[in-house]
Amino acid sequence: MEEIYLDNCSTTPLFTEVMEAMYKAQLQYGNPSSLHFKGIQAEKYVEEARKIIAGALKASPEEIIFTSGGTEANNLAIKGLAYRHYRKGSHLITTPVEHPSALNTFQQLQQEGFSVSYMRIDQDGYIDLDYLKTMLSNNTTLVSFIHVNNETGTIQNIKNICRMVKDFNPNILVHADGVQALGKIPLRPGQYNLDALTISAHKIHGPKGTGALWIKNGVLLQPLFQGGNQENNLRPGTENVAGITGFGKAVSEYINSYAGKVANLHRFKHLFFQELKEKVEVYINGPELKQGAPHIINLSFPGIKSEVLIRSLEEQGIYSSPGSACHSRNNQPSHVLVSLGLNKERIDGAVRFSFSVLNTEEEIEYSAKQVAHCVKDLQKLVF
Amino acid sequence: MEEIYLDNCSTTPLFTEVMEAMYKAQLQYGNPSSLHFKGIQAEKYVEEARKIIAGALKASPEEIIFTSGGTEANNLAIKGLAYRHYRKGSHLITTPVEHPSALNTFQQLQQEGFSVSYMRIDQDGYIDLDYLKTMLSNNTTLVSFIHVNNETGTIQNIKNICRMVKDFNPNILVHADGVQALGKIPLRPGQYNLDALTISAHKIHGPKGTGALWIKNGVLLQPLFQGGNQENNLRPGTENVAGITGFGKAVSEYINSYAGKVANLHRFKHLFFQELKEKVEVYINGPELKQGAPHIINLSFPGIKSEVLIRSLEEQGIYSSPGSACHSRNNQPSHVLVSLGLNKERIDGAVRFSFSVLNTEEEIEYSAKQVAHCVKDLQKLVF
Repeated sequence: MEEIYLDNCSTTPLFTEVMEAMYKAQLQYGNPSSLHFKGIQAEKYVEEARKIIAGALKASPEEIIFTSGGTEANNLAIKGLAYRHYRKGSHLITTPVEHPSALNTFQQLQQEGFSVSYMRIDQDGYIDLDYLKTMLSNNTTLVSFIHVNNETGTIQNIKNICRMVKDFNPNILVHADGVQALGKIPLRPGQYNLDALTISAHKIHGPKGTGALWIKNGVLLQPLFQGGNQENNLRPGTENVAGITGFGKAVSEYINSYAGKVANLHRFKHLFFQELKEKVEVYINGPELKQGAPHIINLSFPGIKSEVLIRSLEEQGIYSSPGSACHSRNNQPSHVLVSLGLNKERIDGAVRFSFSVLNTEEEIEYSAKQVAHCVKDLQKLVF
Repeated sequence: MEEIYLDNCSTTPLFTEVMEAMYKAQLQYGNPSSLHFKGIQAEKYVEEARKIIAGALKASPEEIIFTSGGTEANNLAIKGLAYRHYRKGSHLITTPVEHPSALNTFQQLQQEGFSVSYMRIDQDGYIDLDYLKTMLSNNTTLVSFIHVNNETGTIQNIKNICRMVKDFNPNILVHADGVQALGKIPLRPGQYNLDALTISAHKIHGPKGTGALWIKNGVLLQPLFQGGNQENNLRPGTENVAGITGFGKAVSEYINSYAGKVANLHRFKHLFFQELKEKVEVYINGPELKQGAPHIINLSFPGIKSEVLIRSLEEQGIYSSPGSACHSRNNQPSHVLVSLGLNKERIDGAVRFSFSVLNTEEEIEYSAKQVAHCVKDLQKLVF
């Protein structure tokens, strides 16, 4: 096998259909703000994608605001809600296991005078609901959390969280970062009683540089940018027509051609782990096999540093990731795994394998064998 | 002729080479933040584009921050500099003829407590330098203006403005919105003594959804987003690798294949106007023919409303724009033309024709004839 890409939480290969749809959209080069035919043609592409994405979330098209990606959507949701509803209160609640685009945004808001509290999470990464209940106050305006954790695959129970928060005070807004959830587990933000949900294209075989914020009809939001009146006055700037088209196409491909294959991901994860478990000592960082997201498994092997294993695997053409790619360029230990209370050896050894609907069973079996092989070889050097 | 696109200030058709480069970049789908080969491959695309664009500006690659477009780059420059240097002063200076992405950003900052002053401009759209001098104070931290006006083509003298401001106080920062300047007139931000310059890809046959801020080495800036440490910690979020590649390719195509054709734009503008002037009564809104940007001409014809003329031209397959596409969806008269002191009839009749290196002399001649023809026909109905 030439190359096996098991780093699909970082980013995914584009569906061929997405590339073709984007190429076609680029030929219709008008500016959607233009009043003439060229503009109207371009606008149709944007609105078609908006309908597809809204449909996939069982939402209304006007609830979708396109952004330049998940990072911007998280910033827009968190700052946009915190600023806009500041008069009602300045207390914000999040978790210590957020993606940096949420975590660092809360730290910025804290510097600006907001009060930020961090939920408790257990050793599998689940939010402690009883403790959350004690944190809510009359000054709380926003609760925000990552739906599917990008490092461990822990899936939070959105419904229960929303119910508890809204029971306390229906005016408290709830935002979820759904970047790793989209396409992997059902997402029905309206049914969950959420107020805002972040999604991104490049984690589901769409283009980099395009994401969206779903925002419940009627929920007020302060924009991050000022400019033209695109995206319902909430996100100015000439629309990335091709990127948005690609996002729409990725979602429709998921629904129409890959829906069945999402079930494979669960199977891949089990297969991968079972193959490994038979051959080497291995620990799961995060929730047990049955509970986590279908496409993510975070593993440690006694005595093996993640960088070393990842390099060995790369030599075999297998791509994986230490913790999360988003902080892989600094040398900090993963804040997520630290929050899980794992010991240093487990954290230093954590390797994330993440699967996609484009992986095959053969790839998974072969990779598991190679991982076991590398681990054994490396352990010989260590012990 | 089938279709003649003379709305190149709104957006431009992509160079075929750009589309191909983007397609190729999308096949290398890695996340530039990933440590493995796939990530390194993707990062190379981004850094190659950064070098090309920096080279075109005679700047250093580390001075280029990629953004989702001109709107974000203007917001990043204006807010990022205003917030970061707030302790030195809260007085900001701009013009009344900015693009909405700058003008509305200043209005937002004013609401947040900054003091914003607006320069005086003359009837051709030029900044009154003597008056600007009187506006500078010890509390001034930022002067920001549009280099080439997107509606009238007025070109500000950056060097003189920078010299005057820096003579008063070298710590006052100067930002220019160079979106309509890039590729049309030489841009040497370092030589001009600028601190920040906004540029955008889709006005030079690159993709929508990608822009950049050139920021002088050492100038401190507060980011708009928090997240990962991409773009030198100033603009987090997974890079739009294909978009950035397309931006780089558009710039290199301009330099390598179209440099000679930029001179055509001036010729097109003169030809277009001369053809019209021979046949109908016509007024230029903005600077005289020789002085404005090579690719923009804003015209009014007595008794003709812009919408009516634009529709008639569209029926002939000729695309033009009333004022600026960025506010073409609301019914406000152009704030730029109002600031020029033009009367209501001139403003109501203003049509912007904007050319590109992909237009041909035949298109220009044919369009001018068709415009004259439509104007005469419409005037029969009016008078």
